[in-house]
Amino acid sequence: MKSFDKLKESIKKADSMLCVGLDSDINKIPSCFKKDVNGLFDFNKCIIETTKDVAAAYKINFAFYEQYGTEGFDLLKKTFDLIPKNTFTIADAKRGDIGNTSAAYAKAVFEYFNADSITVNPYMGIDSIEPFLKDLNKFVFILALTSNPGSNDFQRIVADKKPVYQHVIEKAADKYSEENIGFVVGATHPGELAQIRKIIPNYTFLIPGIGAQGGNIKEVLKANNNGLAVINVSRAVLYPELKENNIDELAFAEAVRQKACMFYNDMKL
Amino acid sequence: MKSFDKLKESIKKADSMLCVGLDSDINKIPSCFKKDVNGLFDFNKCIIETTKDVAAAYKINFAFYEQYGTEGFDLLKKTFDLIPKNTFTIADAKRGDIGNTSAAYAKAVFEYFNADSITVNPYMGIDSIEPFLKDLNKFVFILALTSNPGSNDFQRIVADKKPVYQHVIEKAADKYSEENIGFVVGATHPGELAQIRKIIPNYTFLIPGIGAQGGNIKEVLKANNNGLAVINVSRAVLYPELKENNIDELAFAEAVRQKACMFYNDMKL
Repeated sequence: MKSFDKLKESIKKADSMLCVGLDSDINKIPSCFKKDVNGLFDFNKCIIETTKDVAAAYKINFAFYEQYGTEGFDLLKKTFDLIPKNTFTIADAKRGDIGNTSAAYAKAVFEYFNADSITVNPYMGIDSIEPFLKDLNKFVFILALTSNPGSNDFQRIVADKKPVYQHVIEKAADKYSEENIGFVVGATHPGELAQIRKIIPNYTFLIPGIGAQGGNIKEVLKANNNGLAVINVSRAVLYPELKENNIDELAFAEAVRQKACMFYNDMKL
Repeated sequence: MKSFDKLKESIKKADSMLCVGLDSDINKIPSCFKKDVNGLFDFNKCIIETTKDVAAAYKINFAFYEQYGTEGFDLLKKTFDLIPKNTFTIADAKRGDIGNTSAAYAKAVFEYFNADSITVNPYMGIDSIEPFLKDLNKFVFILALTSNPGSNDFQRIVADKKPVYQHVIEKAADKYSEENIGFVVGATHPGELAQIRKIIPNYTFLIPGIGAQGGNIKEVLKANNNGLAVINVSRAVLYPELKENNIDELAFAEAVRQKACMFYNDMKL
C-alpha cells in the first residue's frame, strides 16, 4: 500500500491527528521497568498497547535508540515491529546526504525498519531527498520550520522576500506532489503555520512541539485550517506526572492513557 | 586529549591531508571478501591496515553501515575500534535536531563510538549544534557548502548580499572557536572555498568531493591556501580498478595502496 494512502487511512481510523512520539529514555521511564534496553522494550510495548487505538501515527526518534549503540539499534527494529500494521510510522531520523549516501539511509529506513515515512533535512538540496523517493510508494517529511528556537537562525533568513523555509517548501512542492512529501512545521509558530497552510493547502504537515515544547493545540488547529496533519506529542504522553514513584505497570499505563486521551480529544477530526 | 589537538597531530604525523572515507559497500567489495557484514569487516580491516600510515583521518559514513541494520551498526562500532588510537576519526553522520535529541546523538557518536568528531547539519540552527559541544574536548564539522549539485538549491540562496552557507559560517564561528568547529566545504567549489578560507583563515575544513565526485586536488590546494584541512577520498581509494576479478586480498591491498599513495602525495603538507 502507498504510504500516503496508509497515512490517510490511519488518521481516519484513529479519528484524530494524534501522533505519539517514542522518545524513550532509560533515565525517564518509571521504576516498574528495568533500567536497560530490555526495560525500554517493555516500556515501548506498554506505550503502544496503551495508545494504539488513539494514535494515528507513531514517530520513532532514532537518536534515543542510537545512544544505546547496537543494542539500541536492535530495539529500534523491535519497536517498529511492535506497531500495528495499519498504523502509520514515521522514522524521525532527519537524514539527508549526497545521492549514494541518502540511498543507503533510505535502504535502512524503508527496507530494514520497514517504516512508512522518514523525516529529511533539506539543507543539502533536492538531490539529497530524491533517493528517499526512488520508491514513490514511500513518504518523506521535509523539515521546513522546526519547533526549536534555533529555527530562527537560518530557516527564517529572508531572500527574495521569502524566508529560506518557504524556498524549501516551494522547491520541494514543485518537484513532488502531496502523495510523496509533507513538511515539518513546528507547533510553536502558529502564525507561520497558517501562512504555509495557505501556500500548500494539500500537503501533509508533521507538527511537533506540543506538550514539553509549549505549542498550543487550539492555535495550531486553527492555523492548520483542517489540512491533513499529524500532531506529535512525545514527552507529555510518555512521562506523565505520577502520584507515587513505585507505581506498577498497570497504574502507569492508566496515567499514560489519560494523557493520550486528553491529546486525542483535543486533536479529534 | 582534545579532539582539535589530536586532529593537528594526526595531520602532522601523516604529513598529508588525506582522509580516507570508509563508504564500505557489500556490492562493491572484491570477491576475495565475503559478501556479507563479516566480509565488510575484513574489507575495512584490510583498508585500514593498508592506509594507516598515510591517512591523517578516517571518515566513517554511517549510512553505509545502517543499511545493514543491527549487524551494520555493530560493524560500525567494530570499525571505529580498528582505527589506530592516534588517528583522527570523523563520524560522518550529518545529524542535527532539537536539544534533547541532538544530545542523544552526541552520546551515540562520542560515548558509544568514541569518535573524535562528527559532521552536523546546521538547518535547525545553533541550538541543534550545541549539544554536540557540551564537551568542548570534542570537534564538530558543520555543513557549509556541500559537494553535491543540490548545494545550489538552498545553501547558495543570497540574503543580505551573502549566501546562506556564509550566514551559517559566520553565526557558528561567532559562537565557537576553531578549536571546536570546522566546516564541510566541497572540493567541487574551489572558487567559493578560496573565499571562505579568506573569511575564516583559522578554521579547519573537511573537504569531500575528490575522486568519484570530480573535484580537482590542485585547485583545492590552491584555494585552501595552506589552511588546516583534511581532504576526503572514499570510492577512489576503496574501489580501485582491478586488472582481474578474482584478485586475492594481497593484490587488492596493493591496488588500494597505490591509489592511497597517489592521493597522499598530492595532499602532502
